[in-house]
Amino acid sequence: MAFHDKPRFPLGFRCASRNVGLKPTDKDLALFASDVDAAAAAVFTRNQFPGAPVILGRETMRKGTLRGIVVNSKVSNVATGAAGVEHARRMAAAAARELGTTAGRILVSSTGVIGVPLPIDRIEQGITGMSANLQDDPVVGAEGIMTTDTYPKALSCDVQGAVITWVAKGSGMIEPNMATMLSYIFTDAEFDAATLDRMLRHAVDVSFNMLSVDGDTSTSDTCVILANGHAGAVDEIGFFEALVEGCVRMTELLARDGEGAQHLLRVGVRGAADDEDARRIAKSIVNSPLIKTMVHGADPNVGRLLMAVGKCFDATIHPETTDAWINGHQVVRGGTRVSFDDAVVRQALSVETVDIVVSLGVGEAEATAYGCDLTAGYIEENAAYYSS
Amino acid sequence: MAFHDKPRFPLGFRCASRNVGLKPTDKDLALFASDVDAAAAAVFTRNQFPGAPVILGRETMRKGTLRGIVVNSKVSNVATGAAGVEHARRMAAAAARELGTTAGRILVSSTGVIGVPLPIDRIEQGITGMSANLQDDPVVGAEGIMTTDTYPKALSCDVQGAVITWVAKGSGMIEPNMATMLSYIFTDAEFDAATLDRMLRHAVDVSFNMLSVDGDTSTSDTCVILANGHAGAVDEIGFFEALVEGCVRMTELLARDGEGAQHLLRVGVRGAADDEDARRIAKSIVNSPLIKTMVHGADPNVGRLLMAVGKCFDATIHPETTDAWINGHQVVRGGTRVSFDDAVVRQALSVETVDIVVSLGVGEAEATAYGCDLTAGYIEENAAYYSS
Repeated sequence: MAFHDKPRFPLGFRCASRNVGLKPTDKDLALFASDVDAAAAAVFTRNQFPGAPVILGRETMRKGTLRGIVVNSKVSNVATGAAGVEHARRMAAAAARELGTTAGRILVSSTGVIGVPLPIDRIEQGITGMSANLQDDPVVGAEGIMTTDTYPKALSCDVQGAVITWVAKGSGMIEPNMATMLSYIFTDAEFDAATLDRMLRHAVDVSFNMLSVDGDTSTSDTCVILANGHAGAVDEIGFFEALVEGCVRMTELLARDGEGAQHLLRVGVRGAADDEDARRIAKSIVNSPLIKTMVHGADPNVGRLLMAVGKCFDATIHPETTDAWINGHQVVRGGTRVSFDDAVVRQALSVETVDIVVSLGVGEAEATAYGCDLTAGYIEENAAYYSS
Repeated sequence: MAFHDKPRFPLGFRCASRNVGLKPTDKDLALFASDVDAAAAAVFTRNQFPGAPVILGRETMRKGTLRGIVVNSKVSNVATGAAGVEHARRMAAAAARELGTTAGRILVSSTGVIGVPLPIDRIEQGITGMSANLQDDPVVGAEGIMTTDTYPKALSCDVQGAVITWVAKGSGMIEPNMATMLSYIFTDAEFDAATLDRMLRHAVDVSFNMLSVDGDTSTSDTCVILANGHAGAVDEIGFFEALVEGCVRMTELLARDGEGAQHLLRVGVRGAADDEDARRIAKSIVNSPLIKTMVHGADPNVGRLLMAVGKCFDATIHPETTDAWINGHQVVRGGTRVSFDDAVVRQALSVETVDIVVSLGVGEAEATAYGCDLTAGYIEENAAYYSS
């Protein structure tokens, strides 16, 4: 599938962003709009302290129809009680007024510091007049939702005459205080909300849900897809494949831009007894601090690899059938370290993308997890920050 | 309970350590001996790639009797296949010859680099003659088992006329390659192996098993207790309490000496629905990279605390009854951030020991987890190392 060199929106979608005074000068508010009601589906964080926008968003998404999304960065509206939910409702109402629709058709997201009241007056004032700035470049929207991302993230591709566009920010809990994975997907293909929901859950399962920068689950994670139907019906399988490919690609962009990251780490597990084992072991490896520092140091440390597999206590693992490769070089055969040329594997490990593959030899299931190395940059950014 | 200012052994236990050529000059072999057969019990790593000494040790411990323990550092004898187990047997046999007993009464441990054949000839030669050096100072034994520990760790206390002594090393996967938590406990109190086993499992559950430096589970973790009966029978409850207190104290020493650590982090969870919830949430907090960097940076980041509680998806958590304290200062009430003086809490956080307490308000169960902060020192030590 070919992604566009310069990302663009599907027919009927536009966005705007601006500074409304939450950050000193950077953009801190984004508005995404469809010119007609769009079928929509979303998945939210499983964290048991969800932010107010997530609480409201679950209610909003029951209807399966959206006209727009309004997002602020800098303040996350988490741990703010009933007042926080009321603020989220006012934010939806302000965006609805601006777009000529009802508050129930607006999805709200907030990302940033937690435990701080949302400056709702500034946001309401800031939203006013944004519809005059709506434009076709999804990067403009991506700019308004950034926290510690080093650049705005947007992708788009064609599929059967329709377009799919992804706008996302922040991988893991990487904002100095309380960031989140926010991912908005827009298409002009025609699908009903139930179909979108089914496709989105499957796509997220193999992409964003397999991403980990630090194992810490944000209270605000949100992924939503809007389909306004302007391009008409398309083949579901072909669309789904494109959706998955774009979600995986965006996942890799987010992993690469993880806090302090210098390497993209992809961990494939093959031959597992079942999907749960494959996913658990892939995540165990991608989350292991000792694997992450090994990737950072470009050292083929086979012991850490076996350790990270073996600490999945309840998974079906047979040392005698366990093989492993690092960027194509076999390092484990039958649970034992293979004799290899350290200098060669070290060289192979020093490239930007590190692929670790583990073959368990006990079944047919497989999974891939996405992450990054652990560097002093992560420590600096997260230890030096003052939360208030 | 009073720990001795200078640790000593119970009656009938002695140890020796020396360099046998695995490390350039530091001690790399330790021998612990009882002058009579001692009842014994042990717990081992749950990692599914256990080292050869763990495979052999499970067999040895079935009989419940030990005369000694032989431990080498620098090479872990993990991922070494059948030859590794044979090497572990030879190591046990050499120690048995030296102590005048049978190989089945010797527990073997190895800690260090993995995937490298154990230099068994050097070890066999090195063991010869060690019985002439056996002495009463447990610190001598602790010196022989160190990897990245910054000092040898031994403790002892009196209990009802008997003595309990702890010798331990390394918390988590902190050796540059494949370290381990090794903990040996000696007493002259009289207990049978079954009673020791029951007491040890309970004591380990609330101490070493609640310790985490980096969440990575070594392939060699071993904790064993030997009771030679020289001091006669003692009250089981009193002994058990002393055993737990010493195990917790040793756990704190190991956490404090975690790789790169500058702070001891203790996380208490109270009012949980059940023990599993309490343990899971305490470990989620103590393992969270964002909590660990927060402790390093001495910033009272309430959002990270709620995030780490809330990411225990299956635990019973009610935001409205969740309270939290950092070193005695309440920072969360009813799931919402309390207004507090940041400077005061920051000051309270900057001491060496950081206590985080979370009260869930849903039940009676509680647990405490032990860990340390995450610093650039951890990254440096684990990224810079070459595994071979």
